Amino acid sequence: MTERIYNFSAGPAALPLPVLEQAQKDLISLGDTGIGVLEHSHRSKAFIAVYEAAESLCREIAGIPDNYKVLFLQGGASSQFYMIPMNLLSKDQTADYLVTGSWSKKAVKEAKVFGNVNIACSSEDKNFSYIPEEVSLSEKPAYVHFTSNNTIYGTEFATEPEVPAGVPLICDASSDIFSRPIDISKYGIVYAGAQKNLGPSGVTLVIIRDDLIEQGPTDIPTMLQYRTHSEAGSMFNTPPTFGIYVLGQVLQWLKDQGGLEAIQQKNQAKAGKLYDYLEQSSLFKPTAAKQDRSLMNVTFVTGDADLDAKFIAQATAAGLDGLKGHRSVGGMRASIYNAFPEAGVDKLIEMMSQFEKEHAS
Amino acid sequence: MTERIYNFSAGPAALPLPVLEQAQKDLISLGDTGIGVLEHSHRSKAFIAVYEAAESLCREIAGIPDNYKVLFLQGGASSQFYMIPMNLLSKDQTADYLVTGSWSKKAVKEAKVFGNVNIACSSEDKNFSYIPEEVSLSEKPAYVHFTSNNTIYGTEFATEPEVPAGVPLICDASSDIFSRPIDISKYGIVYAGAQKNLGPSGVTLVIIRDDLIEQGPTDIPTMLQYRTHSEAGSMFNTPPTFGIYVLGQVLQWLKDQGGLEAIQQKNQAKAGKLYDYLEQSSLFKPTAAKQDRSLMNVTFVTGDADLDAKFIAQATAAGLDGLKGHRSVGGMRASIYNAFPEAGVDKLIEMMSQFEKEHAS
Repeated sequence: MTERIYNFSAGPAALPLPVLEQAQKDLISLGDTGIGVLEHSHRSKAFIAVYEAAESLCREIAGIPDNYKVLFLQGGASSQFYMIPMNLLSKDQTADYLVTGSWSKKAVKEAKVFGNVNIACSSEDKNFSYIPEEVSLSEKPAYVHFTSNNTIYGTEFATEPEVPAGVPLICDASSDIFSRPIDISKYGIVYAGAQKNLGPSGVTLVIIRDDLIEQGPTDIPTMLQYRTHSEAGSMFNTPPTFGIYVLGQVLQWLKDQGGLEAIQQKNQAKAGKLYDYLEQSSLFKPTAAKQDRSLMNVTFVTGDADLDAKFIAQATAAGLDGLKGHRSVGGMRASIYNAFPEAGVDKLIEMMSQFEKEHAS
Repeated sequence: MTERIYNFSAGPAALPLPVLEQAQKDLISLGDTGIGVLEHSHRSKAFIAVYEAAESLCREIAGIPDNYKVLFLQGGASSQFYMIPMNLLSKDQTADYLVTGSWSKKAVKEAKVFGNVNIACSSEDKNFSYIPEEVSLSEKPAYVHFTSNNTIYGTEFATEPEVPAGVPLICDASSDIFSRPIDISKYGIVYAGAQKNLGPSGVTLVIIRDDLIEQGPTDIPTMLQYRTHSEAGSMFNTPPTFGIYVLGQVLQWLKDQGGLEAIQQKNQAKAGKLYDYLEQSSLFKPTAAKQDRSLMNVTFVTGDADLDAKFIAQATAAGLDGLKGHRSVGGMRASIYNAFPEAGVDKLIEMMSQFEKEHAS
């Protein structure tokens, strides 16, 4: 069997090996059913048990209050970019968006189809390398939307922005969901594409407060109304069964790791090592403002594009894959989500040290 | 390892065992990449090769002309119910729908959000047990929509309905796609949720003619415009990578079986046996009109709900799973898609014969 390498991909991303090994077995027969997990009717007892376990683990791990629904939808976080304003923003209302990267900008574009948008802050002036401290909310926003972690730029909100009482706070948490404790009660909606911290692509977790479900219009397509999915337990039509299955397995793994506080410590240790190395390096420099650095995506450059390319090629050859940074930042990006092993970070630091010695000026 | 049983599920449904065995390997490492298929970036060379193979097999197997795009979307066929009229039907236009089952009715409901609907025919008067011969199209329909196979009721169009030149014919082929040859050039759009004949749930195949892609409005959400997915090669955002991978593997298996003509012969043989048995049985009776019977979903009853339940229980105990009919028809339903083995049909007939002997009146 081919040896597995270190996969620094920004998403889809590395998953825990025990989860993949369990999935191997369940592909042929889910438990003792004699039917593989891909082949079970979504209405079968076996799959309903899978579904309920995934939802229940989600509620347990994140401490989700009873007045929130947990939905497993399709279409990625990008589908929430339009579904949210379609349900919660009318033509005469304004929604506030904190713009901290490309994905926030895409969310703004979709909101403008439905109503007015107030850009409450933006860090585009410095290529999104920081999280703005000042946020100017509009008078009476329909909601406030932010992106908790910016995959491309390697920045992350330390805590959620403050909003006035009664204003729903909505978060695209695709790239840092369940990487640290979260107080769901502060949010109206938290959503995330699964393919970074939760499982495979093709399933989108939406945690939504009951009053927001009911608020949406009823004259839009049935499947674009949150109430449809809430009432049908995400089974209005056939859900992405395998994605929900893997997500459940990943959450079980996360629980076995000790839950959100324990995984936060591990994530701090992993990212901490890498940032410590970068701080003292005379060759590699982190690109994100120190106080806003992401624990999930660590971005850095040498300042010389040719040298960056040389380092990436050497790293790839040594079994460290996916380190090329996004084109809008350049350089390198190490995506080290929950399931990424600390040994891979150690190996990366070792390679960087070696490379730095060889290229000392 | 648990022995696999015969899975008559209507969907998600049985998949070819060699496909599942290959997927087991690729979960840990896709080829020799050292990264599992779920963990590869959708922009990686390895996944792009998977994607291109799936698309190319699709084109080859179905003989898709060059002026059609092959899209792999999310949300199931139900999402196409609203995406089609959102793009192709305006308030002052009429779309024609052939109503041959519950899914056609759901498609009608979503179309009415956007424009007028003419019910060109309906078989609801006899609980959708037949395909109407008479179709009354409106003067100048924006398009004509039909459901080629009705999973619940066990009926199937023998050929596509005729439409005037210039009127796009749109088909929900979720439950019989690639079960027989298809002349794509007769259609504007053919779409299908993958979970019956193509792979796992969570990926939706949309084959769409170029002129229809461009026809849609541009003031709707970006992801609800066909042009977005056409321009981005279904990678506007992260696609359901594993679903596309399995779909590609299933298509390779289908090609290895000899393609659509060969699979049609096998499907005729499988369903033919079952209908032949039902024709001569004094206990079990087929529910669909003879000339409209589906090769994919064979529905039948004893006429006695208690006896139906007894048969289903005995069959389940003997390793024939998923035979319970949909509640709107009752009785039994044997879903025997492409991947369902002929030996399972033989076993079912054997059990029915035995049961019939034991319950001869």
